[in-house]
Amino acid sequence: MRKILIIGVGAGDPAQITIQAIEALNRADVFFIPDKGAEKSGLRQQRLKICDRYLKSAAHRFVEYKTPSRAKTPDYKADVAAWHEAIAATFEALFARELTEDQCGAFLVWGDPALYDSTLRIVETLHARGAVTFDYEIIPGISSVQALAAQHKIALNRIGEPVHITTGRKLRENVPENADSVVVMLDGEESFAALDDEDLEIFWGANIGCPEQALASGRLGDVKDRIKELRAKVRAAAGWVMDVYLLRKPMR
Amino acid sequence: MRKILIIGVGAGDPAQITIQAIEALNRADVFFIPDKGAEKSGLRQQRLKICDRYLKSAAHRFVEYKTPSRAKTPDYKADVAAWHEAIAATFEALFARELTEDQCGAFLVWGDPALYDSTLRIVETLHARGAVTFDYEIIPGISSVQALAAQHKIALNRIGEPVHITTGRKLRENVPENADSVVVMLDGEESFAALDDEDLEIFWGANIGCPEQALASGRLGDVKDRIKELRAKVRAAAGWVMDVYLLRKPMR
Ligand SMILES: C[S@@+](CC[C@H](N)C(=O)[O-])C[C@H]1O[C@@H](n2cnc3c(N)ncnc32)[C@H](O)[C@@H]1O
Ligand SMILES: C[S@@+](CC[C@H](N)C(=O)[O-])C[C@H]1O[C@@H](n2cnc3c(N)ncnc32)[C@H](O)[C@@H]1O
Repeated sequence: MRKILIIGVGAGDPAQITIQAIEALNRADVFFIPDKGAEKSGLRQQRLKICDRYLKSAAHRFVEYKTPSRAKTPDYKADVAAWHEAIAATFEALFARELTEDQCGAFLVWGDPALYDSTLRIVETLHARGAVTFDYEIIPGISSVQALAAQHKIALNRIGEPVHITTGRKLRENVPENADSVVVMLDGEESFAALDDEDLEIFWGANIGCPEQALASGRLGDVKDRIKELRAKVRAAAGWVMDVYLLRKPMR
Repeated sequence: MRKILIIGVGAGDPAQITIQAIEALNRADVFFIPDKGAEKSGLRQQRLKICDRYLKSAAHRFVEYKTPSRAKTPDYKADVAAWHEAIAATFEALFARELTEDQCGAFLVWGDPALYDSTLRIVETLHARGAVTFDYEIIPGISSVQALAAQHKIALNRIGEPVHITTGRKLRENVPENADSVVVMLDGEESFAALDDEDLEIFWGANIGCPEQALASGRLGDVKDRIKELRAKVRAAAGWVMDVYLLRKPMR
């Protein structure tokens, strides 16, 4: 049966890939790679660098695919659902066309496939639909959240306390009250800068593990302007910026 | 200057270790290993197996240390603080005695050092105290949470929704309302079985990545007895059991 591997490759640093992921890379006959339009070229290069470094033979092909772009109406979930449906159709055609019955295809997923990535969900939908038959496996990867914590040398949780991982969108609705530590991802809009509580501690990082990595931490009110500057600088240097941060109330 | 490496080695599967962690293992002159009394022997063996598999030379020593045990009074945080203080004194003596000024010592941390592990916090305290001078680095590892998600082939979050990571202790106080997906760690007491809402979906795993791994998922009310049985079986087979699970309301 066809096999699909969804491989977490870490969030930037090519050394933050597991032995299991490298073994999986080397099982693949075909790599499915989003095309340039769909992906910032810096990210794309990083992905190909990883393959290059860890593939032991040349017995594989790269197949590019166009990902449709997501509509941006006020209904976020409906947009995402329609977008996933369109990607699913693309994947279905790819699997049927590019893989023989006994071949193995792979997706390289940024960070951990279990965290704010749609590949797994889409592949699962196709699997359930059954029009193309295949088996699939998930290989976990170091997420940007973990890379952030390691760079700042902090634990995500305080002793016995929870950690809440959320998005910029949700943070703008409200800061979770029950969380102690809040990690924010998918924040293209510098939502930290609009928070009322300037006494929060922030641990911030952009393009972590990549050559243009920037880090900052401190009292939110003191460092937010500096973070905005760094963010702009990283974007200018790399051509793209992704950032993640942890917020918590200071110890009383 | 002395160097301390805090190396995340994954939560059970020896293939779930990163290249960065393997490189770090090979930089260490001395490995600090908790002694048998302090650690279940199954865990200990798993740790040593990892060293064995990935160390490229024999130019290193293993140094065992006794960890004091934690008092169990009703004041959890005070107990933990006192316990950390006692471990800190142990570490301070170890660094001074076992490492020359230019040597490198390492701790192998289960899963990711940033998630419910005290090594980082204790080393940080000693670093700030400055009685023994050293530098330290954190190397992230695949956490049991990620191993759980990969085994169940699920994402931790639903589309655009947050993930709340908490402890069995906190879950017994209340189920977080704002979380959509709740991951529970450090639950020695089968807290899932006491929840009121039997319609929650649960994705559960014990000793994930280890030979005795067990998994179960489904409607909480339907699977909780099965999970208790599996938990007992794993403990009997391995001599220890650690479990982690994700809870969420079913899709409406
Ligand atoms: C679509 S999500 C994918 C997350 C990924 N699966 C992971 O495990 O990190 C993209 C978000 O991840 C975060 N991110 C990914 N890589 C990053 C990096 N190298 N530095 C900082 N943030 C990063 C940012 O919050 C970004 O908006
Ligand atoms: C002290 S915490 C350490 C967590 C670790 N740093 C991590 O990243 O997974 C121990 C808890 O982790 C979870 N855990 C660790 N290893 C596990 C495994 N192999 N299978 C299931 N749960 C595990 C359990 O919830 C356990 O109570």
